[in-house]
Formats: sequence, C-alpha cells, structure tokens
Amino acid sequence: MTTQTTTTALIPMEAIREHWQGHRRLTRRVIEAFPEEAFESYSIGGMRPFSELALEMIGMAEPGINGILTGNWAKFGELEHEVPGAGKHDKAHILRRWDEITELIDRLWPEIPEGRLEQVETAFGLYSQPIYNTLLYFIDNEIHHRGQGYVYLRSLGIEPPAFWDRR
Amino acid sequence: MTTQTTTTALIPMEAIREHWQGHRRLTRRVIEAFPEEAFESYSIGGMRPFSELALEMIGMAEPGINGILTGNWAKFGELEHEVPGAGKHDKAHILRRWDEITELIDRLWPEIPEGRLEQVETAFGLYSQPIYNTLLYFIDNEIHHRGQGYVYLRSLGIEPPAFWDRR
Repeated sequence: MTTQTTTTALIPMEAIREHWQGHRRLTRRVIEAFPEEAFESYSIGGMRPFSELALEMIGMAEPGINGILTGNWAKFGELEHEVPGAGKHDKAHILRRWDEITELIDRLWPEIPEGRLEQVETAFGLYSQPIYNTLLYFIDNEIHHRGQGYVYLRSLGIEPPAFWDRR
Repeated sequence: MTTQTTTTALIPMEAIREHWQGHRRLTRRVIEAFPEEAFESYSIGGMRPFSELALEMIGMAEPGINGILTGNWAKFGELEHEVPGAGKHDKAHILRRWDEITELIDRLWPEIPEGRLEQVETAFGLYSQPIYNTLLYFIDNEIHHRGQGYVYLRSLGIEPPAFWDRR
C-alpha cells in the first residue's frame, strides 16, 4: 500500500445526484408521515414545526440547484423561507413543491459542466467555498432538520420511515 | 457552457477529511452541552439517550476509518455499540473516546491510497457500495442523530451550538 500525501477522490456526478435525491426521497416520506395538523403546528422546545423546516429545505434546494448550474445565487433574505408568511404550509402544497424541485434537479443536473463543483463561489452571498461544500451543506441541513422531524414523529407515537432506506 | 452527460467531481481527500472532522467537532460540542444526567438518560418518544447515540457514532467511526484504510470490516453485531452494556456512558469517558478517534482519523487518513474511496466493498458485512458512499453514511448517520440531540437540548431549555459552525 503506497502512502499518498495529496490525493483526490473521483466521485461520479451521477452518484452525487443519487445521494441527494435519495435523501430527498426519505424526507418526502417523513413529510407524508405527519398528520396534517401536526405538520403545520407541532413543535418541541420552541423549535419550528416540520412544515417550516420543509419550507427551508425547499428554499435552499430550488435556488441551490439553479445556483450550482448558473452561478446566479439568490441572496439570503430573498429566499422563500426567509420571507415572513411566504409559502403555504399544508402538506399537499409542500409535497407538490417538493416533487417540482425533484424534477428540476433531475432536469438540470446533467447540464452541470465538468469541473463546476470544484469552483469556489459565494453561494447565497454567504458561503465562499467550493460548490461541492455548498451542496453538502444543503444535504447536511436537510438531514439535520429531518432528524428533528424523527423526534417529533416518535413523540407523537408515529414510527418514522427507516433512515437507511433511500429508495 | 458545454453539456456533459458523464462527469466526475474531483474532491480533494483533505476536503473530505475536513468535512468529516468538522461534523465531529460540532457533535463533540453537542455532547458537551448536555448535563451529565440528561446525557445518560434523557429521552423523548422512547428514543435512545444521547450517550447511546454517541456510542453508536463511536462504534461506526472507529471500525469505519480502519475499514476504509485496510478493508478489514468488523461485522455488524461485533460493533461496540451492538454489544449490550458495552462502553461507559458518562461524558468524560465518551469525550475521551471521541478524541482518540479524532486523532486516529487524522493519523490514518493520509495513508488512504489514491482510488481507495472509489472501490466497491461490503462494509460491516451489510453495505456493498463504493467506499465514498459508506463514509457519507457514517457522516449522515451522525448528522441525523445529532439533530435528535438538538431537540433533546432545546426541550431541556439548553441552546445547542450553531449548526453551521464547524470550527
């Protein structure tokens, strides 16, 4: 085994898309698992209801995939989830928006040019870093808030979907 | 902008190490934020206390970095967190173990050969997939359970550390 001091992982763009979309499929099932009323208003410890968290994910993923492709980033504060009262909070609306963005990601993904994820750019006027880090941040943020949703569901006596199942 | 149908992201191994360790630094702060008693026993909705979740993370990261480097994977069921009663649950013990593994990852990481993350292998006798997916799973699992810890802390009236801060 040769020791390398500078190495690079080669990760197929398709594997990255599938990783993201696998998490989005799981989050969609978590949204579905909530009763309507709890989705819009249930909270623990003063945290936001899961509908607000889902709106945040939507408000990151949609300008996010556009920013990744085009370099045009919405500014923080112009984002959907940053505008007070923006977005309807019912499950049907949010699931519809969710599915639109799933299709948008699948449609735009193949257009991302080779080398794009390695470019350093200031996403949302906030984070100056390689695009792969920005994308990982979107996914991490979704996992983090979804983990919150698991506790909400368990405390409501509802079994959440299996974490490892991303089909 | 040229459209590519088969593209590959080139992600420096050092960026991947830093991504993992950044999450581990944040999780360490979440462990520290718990009062001792709550760390070992506080729970919502029948879920495990945060000490158990931290032991699971430890039980994945330590054989995980060894498996990534050597291809020798512990089997599920032989893992530390799978052995009933294994591991002490107090904060001091778990933080000490945490720091040992942080050093272990930093020590072993530069020895991972070029191309290793792209190899398909059955980690823990369970997941046959490229090593980069196995590593992402360790990180995702940590984010997921740490998100649970944020709800425990909030419901205890404790402000959790900032999610975006990975210093």
